[in-house]
Amino acid sequence: MRQEQTEPTGKLTGGAANYPLPARKSRQTLGNMIFAAEKLLLTRMLESVGNPPLHVMLWNGEGVAHHGEGSVAKVLIHDRGALLKLVANPELNFGRMYADRRIDVQGNMMDFLDAVYRSWPRLSDGKFAKKLLAPFQEARRNSLQSARRNIHHHYDIGNDFYQLWLDKQMVYTCAYFSGQNMSLEDAQTAKLDHVCRKLWLQPGEQVVEAGCGWGALALHMARHYGVSVKAYNISEEQIAFARQRAKDEGLDSQVEFIEDDYRNIQGEFDAFVSVGMLEHVGIDHYQELGAAIDRTLKDGGRGLIHSIGRDYPRPMDAWISEHIFPGACPPSLAQMMQIFEPFDFSILDVENLRLHYAKTLEHWLQRYEIAAERISEMFDAAFVRTWRLYLAGSLAAFRSGHMQLFQVLFNRSGHNQIPWTRDYQYAAGGCNGKL
Amino acid sequence: MRQEQTEPTGKLTGGAANYPLPARKSRQTLGNMIFAAEKLLLTRMLESVGNPPLHVMLWNGEGVAHHGEGSVAKVLIHDRGALLKLVANPELNFGRMYADRRIDVQGNMMDFLDAVYRSWPRLSDGKFAKKLLAPFQEARRNSLQSARRNIHHHYDIGNDFYQLWLDKQMVYTCAYFSGQNMSLEDAQTAKLDHVCRKLWLQPGEQVVEAGCGWGALALHMARHYGVSVKAYNISEEQIAFARQRAKDEGLDSQVEFIEDDYRNIQGEFDAFVSVGMLEHVGIDHYQELGAAIDRTLKDGGRGLIHSIGRDYPRPMDAWISEHIFPGACPPSLAQMMQIFEPFDFSILDVENLRLHYAKTLEHWLQRYEIAAERISEMFDAAFVRTWRLYLAGSLAAFRSGHMQLFQVLFNRSGHNQIPWTRDYQYAAGGCNGKL
Repeated sequence: MRQEQTEPTGKLTGGAANYPLPARKSRQTLGNMIFAAEKLLLTRMLESVGNPPLHVMLWNGEGVAHHGEGSVAKVLIHDRGALLKLVANPELNFGRMYADRRIDVQGNMMDFLDAVYRSWPRLSDGKFAKKLLAPFQEARRNSLQSARRNIHHHYDIGNDFYQLWLDKQMVYTCAYFSGQNMSLEDAQTAKLDHVCRKLWLQPGEQVVEAGCGWGALALHMARHYGVSVKAYNISEEQIAFARQRAKDEGLDSQVEFIEDDYRNIQGEFDAFVSVGMLEHVGIDHYQELGAAIDRTLKDGGRGLIHSIGRDYPRPMDAWISEHIFPGACPPSLAQMMQIFEPFDFSILDVENLRLHYAKTLEHWLQRYEIAAERISEMFDAAFVRTWRLYLAGSLAAFRSGHMQLFQVLFNRSGHNQIPWTRDYQYAAGGCNGKL
Repeated sequence: MRQEQTEPTGKLTGGAANYPLPARKSRQTLGNMIFAAEKLLLTRMLESVGNPPLHVMLWNGEGVAHHGEGSVAKVLIHDRGALLKLVANPELNFGRMYADRRIDVQGNMMDFLDAVYRSWPRLSDGKFAKKLLAPFQEARRNSLQSARRNIHHHYDIGNDFYQLWLDKQMVYTCAYFSGQNMSLEDAQTAKLDHVCRKLWLQPGEQVVEAGCGWGALALHMARHYGVSVKAYNISEEQIAFARQRAKDEGLDSQVEFIEDDYRNIQGEFDAFVSVGMLEHVGIDHYQELGAAIDRTLKDGGRGLIHSIGRDYPRPMDAWISEHIFPGACPPSLAQMMQIFEPFDFSILDVENLRLHYAKTLEHWLQRYEIAAERISEMFDAAFVRTWRLYLAGSLAAFRSGHMQLFQVLFNRSGHNQIPWTRDYQYAAGGCNGKL
């Protein structure tokens, strides 16, 4: 993580310069009173987000420093307007002000973000019923059409941008670091394989994938497990890229990439798999997803859903929802069960890979910083800072337990042709010995 | 499973003998009409339970046989009263009438029960909201006092009774058959060890167990993992038995058996464990259980709950609830999350061991049949048949997917001192190499 370098105290300038400076003493007193009120607002805002161990320094060198030596970083607010926006809605406006350089962080960005996430209250209102309802109010925006628009917003930025900091196979989901000191490339292959093993894939089987990204998993399944795959995605750029890869590898007769919504899946399949799509589905569409799986999974079929999740229901962070992933919401496990419990499915296995996502994000962030110059030739400064904050914030979110990563394996209720123990997931040799 | 031997058709007698036989033709016609109506009721009842592939034969040799060659067993109803009771409430009264020999099953009992469970509708009303509510209406009976009464009903029948058909260690929960052709004794030890491994127990740690049965797990943890255990149970007979074992083994300074409710747990612990108690807690008490764990688990603590569960919420079967486990209800995973999501817990791992419970029950049932003569010296005939039906019915329930077995592993939210992958659960050598 690149460390923010800013000028020492007192020399900070910003929007404050535009504020009419009082000339007479009475104006000065009024100014002092206003400033005192602003500091009080800042203190209240910090309390409302759990009082994280930070110094906050204002444009004039003054500020709020409740934590003494225990402070992990310094937040620099460069102008009065930024302060007021931050106080009004810290969750949404911190990121916005940071992107515009009206707020900076001095010290280690990761420590700062980790401290913020760990202090953050579960929800401002302690009532659990309200917490349970909150996410439902969040994600009502994923009709067929708006889902397409939301996905376009994030995934169609340009394949060349993602190629700068993802692994060679272009896997934009949590990797699986099954061995120590694994490279990101190896950990992504290990993840693809961990998914295939769990699904107990057999040569000749038919698999459907919902939300296939740039196609890495679909191609891996075809290449190493001898299955046929129908892979769905509503991102135009990703589908085009994936089709070309299938062609280049001569796998296009075995893997069909289909530009369509998960709700339109057609066919009959031995296995259903979805890695990193559920976050975009929206909790109130889970029953539609369950119905699509129920409609297309054969009697002896298995399925796996890999998704970011939460320890308890809460809405998506406002800034991420606004600037990074419109319409997205990571579910708690109870919420995820809304996919399965209304239909004839049985949960076989749930694994939480939270720390693997933190490690994956360390790699991405490192590569992102290495490519920062190249990226700033492609996009404006606010974009570069927005994405830096998003990657660093996600890393902190997984490290602090603010977000989880669940792999949920299921099959048809009452079907007994399933592995006897989970030993098979850990047997020697990747890809069922075929790698 | 002992096969029910009954006389061939026509020779069946029973309560029907008490029914006044009509002497004149008009009476005969009336009798025929009544009989036709009874057969119609029977047909309707069979439809309401999903039309399982059975023949049903009545006291006079007539009956209902819709399935021809596809029928898996023959149900013999020995008197008109039994028929009417069965039609009125098949879920509750089949077991009652079976216990009293007013109903018999001819053919393979396991095939019969499996067919019934597989045909059984999710609920008579297809609306999911109603299904979600149903269990809440069920288990409101587990106050401190009634919990004690309910547990006494089942677990204080007599230790000598359970010794006749459980393994030597007296483990009355699902075993773990980690190897092929394992004996029940070995599979129960493997289960105790599977639980300890998952919990990542370290020598010197403090463990609390809620619902400790006859003490096998608490003693295993102390013996092989060097931890201190406080083990709670409200069954008087079980606690007395467990205390004696601890004394006999010289483990009584390391393991304390406490006759009290999980809600009264006191202390601070590195690990919480509960195997086979949750079924008795009742869904509307889950938050109390969560609060008890939250109050006593240290910051870096882990926990495991092992419980019978469901693929979706539904009330306990009426007969089981009435005659075997008053106040009990196995939860769906979404329901189980009510223990964790209101507090600072994070789910690490869920494993479904359904088929292991079916195999455990095969062993128990086999041993029960071997001991049947001894048991009928201890109890009356209705008890012997009730328990046979309960064990066989449970076996069929797990085999058909009517019931699940979940092991849920969790820790404190955001704590990162956790195993990196699940390899450690499958490393060679039982008891972390100490067995």
